[in-house]
Amino acid sequence: MKFFQTWQGACITDGITGEFFPAQVPGNIQNDYAKAFSWGDVNYADNCKQYEALEDYAWLYRTELIYEQNEGERIFFVTYGIEYEYDILLNHKKLLHHTGMFSKVELDITDELKNGTLLEIYLYPHPKREGADPCRDQADQSCKPAVCYGWDWHPRLLVSGIFDETFIETRTDASITFCEPSYQLSEDFKKADLHFEIDCGETVSISLYSPDGQCIYEGTSHDIHLEDVALWWCNGQGKANLYRYQVRSSRDTIEGHIGFRHIRLGMNGEHAWNYPSEFPKSRSYPPITIELNGRPIFAKGSNWVNPEIFTATITEPLYEEQLQLAKDANMNILRCWGGAIVNKEYFFELCDRLGLMVWQEFPLACNNYVGTPDYLAVLEQEATAIIRRIRRHPCHVLWCGGNELFNGWSKMTDQSLALRLLNKLCYEYDREKPFIPTAPIMGMGHGHYLFYDQESKQSVFELFRQSDNTAYSEFGIPSIAPMEILEKVLPPELIQTPTPDTAWETHMGYNAWTPDSWLCLGIIDELFGKQTCIEDYIEKSTWTQCEGLKCVFEEARRQKPHCSMAINWCYNEPWNNVAGNSLLRYPTLPQPGYYAVRDALRNVMPSARIEHFSYEAGETLCAELWLLNDSDSEVSQTVRVYLEINGQKEPVLTWETGTIPANTNKKGHKIQIELPQNAPTQAIILHLEADCGNSSYKLLLKATKQEEINQHRLNV
Amino acid sequence: MKFFQTWQGACITDGITGEFFPAQVPGNIQNDYAKAFSWGDVNYADNCKQYEALEDYAWLYRTELIYEQNEGERIFFVTYGIEYEYDILLNHKKLLHHTGMFSKVELDITDELKNGTLLEIYLYPHPKREGADPCRDQADQSCKPAVCYGWDWHPRLLVSGIFDETFIETRTDASITFCEPSYQLSEDFKKADLHFEIDCGETVSISLYSPDGQCIYEGTSHDIHLEDVALWWCNGQGKANLYRYQVRSSRDTIEGHIGFRHIRLGMNGEHAWNYPSEFPKSRSYPPITIELNGRPIFAKGSNWVNPEIFTATITEPLYEEQLQLAKDANMNILRCWGGAIVNKEYFFELCDRLGLMVWQEFPLACNNYVGTPDYLAVLEQEATAIIRRIRRHPCHVLWCGGNELFNGWSKMTDQSLALRLLNKLCYEYDREKPFIPTAPIMGMGHGHYLFYDQESKQSVFELFRQSDNTAYSEFGIPSIAPMEILEKVLPPELIQTPTPDTAWETHMGYNAWTPDSWLCLGIIDELFGKQTCIEDYIEKSTWTQCEGLKCVFEEARRQKPHCSMAINWCYNEPWNNVAGNSLLRYPTLPQPGYYAVRDALRNVMPSARIEHFSYEAGETLCAELWLLNDSDSEVSQTVRVYLEINGQKEPVLTWETGTIPANTNKKGHKIQIELPQNAPTQAIILHLEADCGNSSYKLLLKATKQEEINQHRLNV
Repeated sequence: MKFFQTWQGACITDGITGEFFPAQVPGNIQNDYAKAFSWGDVNYADNCKQYEALEDYAWLYRTELIYEQNEGERIFFVTYGIEYEYDILLNHKKLLHHTGMFSKVELDITDELKNGTLLEIYLYPHPKREGADPCRDQADQSCKPAVCYGWDWHPRLLVSGIFDETFIETRTDASITFCEPSYQLSEDFKKADLHFEIDCGETVSISLYSPDGQCIYEGTSHDIHLEDVALWWCNGQGKANLYRYQVRSSRDTIEGHIGFRHIRLGMNGEHAWNYPSEFPKSRSYPPITIELNGRPIFAKGSNWVNPEIFTATITEPLYEEQLQLAKDANMNILRCWGGAIVNKEYFFELCDRLGLMVWQEFPLACNNYVGTPDYLAVLEQEATAIIRRIRRHPCHVLWCGGNELFNGWSKMTDQSLALRLLNKLCYEYDREKPFIPTAPIMGMGHGHYLFYDQESKQSVFELFRQSDNTAYSEFGIPSIAPMEILEKVLPPELIQTPTPDTAWETHMGYNAWTPDSWLCLGIIDELFGKQTCIEDYIEKSTWTQCEGLKCVFEEARRQKPHCSMAINWCYNEPWNNVAGNSLLRYPTLPQPGYYAVRDALRNVMPSARIEHFSYEAGETLCAELWLLNDSDSEVSQTVRVYLEINGQKEPVLTWETGTIPANTNKKGHKIQIELPQNAPTQAIILHLEADCGNSSYKLLLKATKQEEINQHRLNV
Repeated sequence: MKFFQTWQGACITDGITGEFFPAQVPGNIQNDYAKAFSWGDVNYADNCKQYEALEDYAWLYRTELIYEQNEGERIFFVTYGIEYEYDILLNHKKLLHHTGMFSKVELDITDELKNGTLLEIYLYPHPKREGADPCRDQADQSCKPAVCYGWDWHPRLLVSGIFDETFIETRTDASITFCEPSYQLSEDFKKADLHFEIDCGETVSISLYSPDGQCIYEGTSHDIHLEDVALWWCNGQGKANLYRYQVRSSRDTIEGHIGFRHIRLGMNGEHAWNYPSEFPKSRSYPPITIELNGRPIFAKGSNWVNPEIFTATITEPLYEEQLQLAKDANMNILRCWGGAIVNKEYFFELCDRLGLMVWQEFPLACNNYVGTPDYLAVLEQEATAIIRRIRRHPCHVLWCGGNELFNGWSKMTDQSLALRLLNKLCYEYDREKPFIPTAPIMGMGHGHYLFYDQESKQSVFELFRQSDNTAYSEFGIPSIAPMEILEKVLPPELIQTPTPDTAWETHMGYNAWTPDSWLCLGIIDELFGKQTCIEDYIEKSTWTQCEGLKCVFEEARRQKPHCSMAINWCYNEPWNNVAGNSLLRYPTLPQPGYYAVRDALRNVMPSARIEHFSYEAGETLCAELWLLNDSDSEVSQTVRVYLEINGQKEPVLTWETGTIPANTNKKGHKIQIELPQNAPTQAIILHLEADCGNSSYKLLLKATKQEEINQHRLNV
């Protein structure tokens, strides 16, 4: 039996415990404090800055335990995670000191309960490495998610508290305290040897149900052989088949599911071993193609980040809404990035059901996590807990040490002890699962994060056509948030006047990455000319975000099999930024960019490799036609091409693709369209129409200087 | 007390044990068999092929044990290694089954000795993976050195037997059965905390002597703190300081040495983190600069390979002679390549003393060692034994998974379980030592192995000037063996007529790598014109080997710090090849190429980056002048440049280098010399003379067609 408690919290300053206030569990104590003292909405204007005052406090949780104890039962305090360093005290007696928020604690408190029921949890102040600047650097000796120390889409706001499910549990020898199924698939993936590891003092009975609900096993053996296994497939490749099980003792029933699937990383195409070909010869690119049940999968999806600043308060409906939207956008993978939290169980259960593959990073991001003995000890404990919890989920396909650790801003290397330790732990606890030390590794690319690079004068149209990475695990195009959100987070007087050092900057409009990001008004001015109101900037930035994301996703797909992955930065956001790269606005509002990505990720679709986004009147628009096929079936399409200009849709040509094998793209004609000399500046649209669905690309045609003058005269 | 035994051997065919013959221990049973039955010298003509008949035999070693046992002593059978799979039987009773030649076995046989003293070792036939072709592929599921299955410088000749020291030992509780010092250096490398791990049933006393022979500790503590530590340095950077210790129980005395030094891999130059600079951005190159006691070292040396076909018969004098020659050649590192054996203890002791750093690979080379449970189990046992034995040696600076595993001919990847296991084991047992999964890794290069590439029409002069690898861990230029060796290994009638399918081919003159290698007569014909006798071919191939090796070593050094390593293929050879890339001819005969390398590896030297090896009359010879400084001191030199042509040495210019910091090169003038129009084909020599020593480069000047005709007329 589990008994959930009612908690209070208080802050401790200079050793003095303040006034107690109600505390949500799971929850973040800073959130509770702000609610108790009626602070304003953290999402509004500069309110988030108020939390800086709380940074170096200690905190106390307390509760008088309420539970029922029957004859022979032991009483346990169980927590799935408390952020970050804490003591557990019962009747003022310290029972445990613990560092790390991802490791479960199970504490037998039966004997101490005879002396009283006052349970307290003392939270130490947030870890901050001595001497580090007040930014993510402070997190480089801890396993706390670095993002709350400030990121280019997340305000600095340090949170802690009882992070995950926490309760009092009564147990006997008949309690099932551990239950994990594992299996070995036969080489043809048709048979499975299933094994249950179970901790229970008595014999348990096991029931197993096939994905269609049939009971296929009932008995007490922990080893079950299955024939004709219905495999788990990711979204777009087949059903996410799950077998359900029940394990029962006289006291407990544990339920769960199993998805049978085989995962490995394969080389990026058959020819990958032929490179490099010249002497002196280096190594071949490492494999990064996800092979699911032997089938190479083009991994397409997005980077998942904290959906809440107060990460402990994430609700199941929020997970449900976000993940269903990811599936609906034809995604098959989410990268759970190392700066963020490791998600709670429900996230992985949903991904199992929805067929969303999960790339899980350990909590290391953009820092040099030096392998000191203290750090390695906590990392080993936390990583072990993370691996042992997540490995069983069929959705989980890849371990990764953390984000951008082999780049100049992190300065970790293959020799870093922390990463070698993670490799070792993954080998020990989940050896059949691929492990990469960081992203990007050799061959992979991160960036660009802008539609247009003002220095090189290149848009993503030019940039990605020339790049040849094996995987694009981060790239993004920012847009300005819609008016409804600007109105929600900005003081009204600021809305038409974007200004640094105001709430525009707090909400990442300026100086988030470069001085101009993420509003990037300068880019819009350079591409489209000076705009007159914020609504026009929003429109242009939304346009470039949509076309830019389509361009990169489709280009990456066209480079298959040399490229096997496209994962944009990023999917969601933890509050409302005024501008940024996410596809969903906080909490779950899909942006036009979301729908553009959804279109670009359809399994079978016509696609155009277009040379440029922007054309001068009289220029020639060149584009290669492609049919993209990520499906497991052969396809054949008739693709009709039109150009819409001056509001008129003119036919260009019709392409009969012929039969294209499963999981293979086909390149078609290269079209060349002379654009009119005397046209006003306008959007022109290239339409590709086919039975499998249409694709369209909204490009910019700019009038010549003379034509601009003519138009101006006409208008006057 | 150790008691060495006299052994006999016999081969077993179809379960029937043949005639016994004397067996050398340590030794290879195939060698003993050949001696017993008076086979011809394995090094001569095609004699090596005779051994193919022995490949699938089992073998039996036997001895009647002779030893003295005192009251209270236990009797152990101890072996440091038997190749490869074997049973140990005492009085026909099987005591142990073991697979793997690098793990020590210590077997208490006291009780069984009451029944008799007949010790037998049954060797199973060589491992050959079922279905594999008769080449190194057969070794891809074992930890046996792959080289004996055939390589481009090693005949196929499979050996096995009692590989390392093997004896009967009497022990009591006072025996010291394990003793290993380890230490932690302070951050400034000045202080050391030394710890002895010792297995002995009684208190032992420890004496410690400084490198100058002073006793600096005498006592029974296993923990000793040292101040002002004299560090161990590699050749060319300082003294290879060794502290000696004695550990004494009432029964045993163990002696050994300790070299205090700190090792890490650093990035290749300060700017390495700035690359890559463009979006989409991949990772930076991994570090491969050896930093010894905080000082970046340009690692220069050679690839060490088996110095004997019968690897178990390597003698201490052979090790001594080869390693002293390596030191004399200004080398500071040897790469012990994964296809070869892991050397015996004495090799590492010598390298400790001589200041030769050792890059040690595990026994994996040019194969896909699939991580089956059986293979991983043996690999874990063998690798653990290798790590725990070698880690203590100051000479040992780098662990490497094996040779060229991330290339198309091996097809292993970062995901291969065998390599992840090795990384894990090195982390567990020797975590402060760098580990790389294979060579080459990203940034590093292997090859070329020819002076001149007939397809691209490039010599190494053009090739390496354009390459920009971080390390050149293999490259080679072949030469033909001198007449004295050809006369030793070839039937006399063959010497002037190199022919495929004869002993010329057996000894790697043809079809070793390409059809033409390693004689490479076609290359000589293309560069120099058709030669008339084997002596002329020898002369030309020696010339190109010397100039080619100097060119690559010096070019790699000029690319410092972006490049930090140059290690040629290869140092030695296991028998006499008629042609090949080694610097020493079997067993220890330095070639002209050896002396060229010795010159190119001087710490401080003038060097020329010369555009081409071969010039037409009238062409311009262009070369950049450099002063190379790998020393720890600043230098300043006057470099006088001369060109020797038609036997005349003409001054070109004098370059005052000015002061050049320690461990830094300086680029000087670019000289341009117009070569005469009317010169006969000849060698011309560029001389660079300086107080630190002279450098010279022997280049080829080819007469124009017309000049050739003129010369011909003159001669006629």
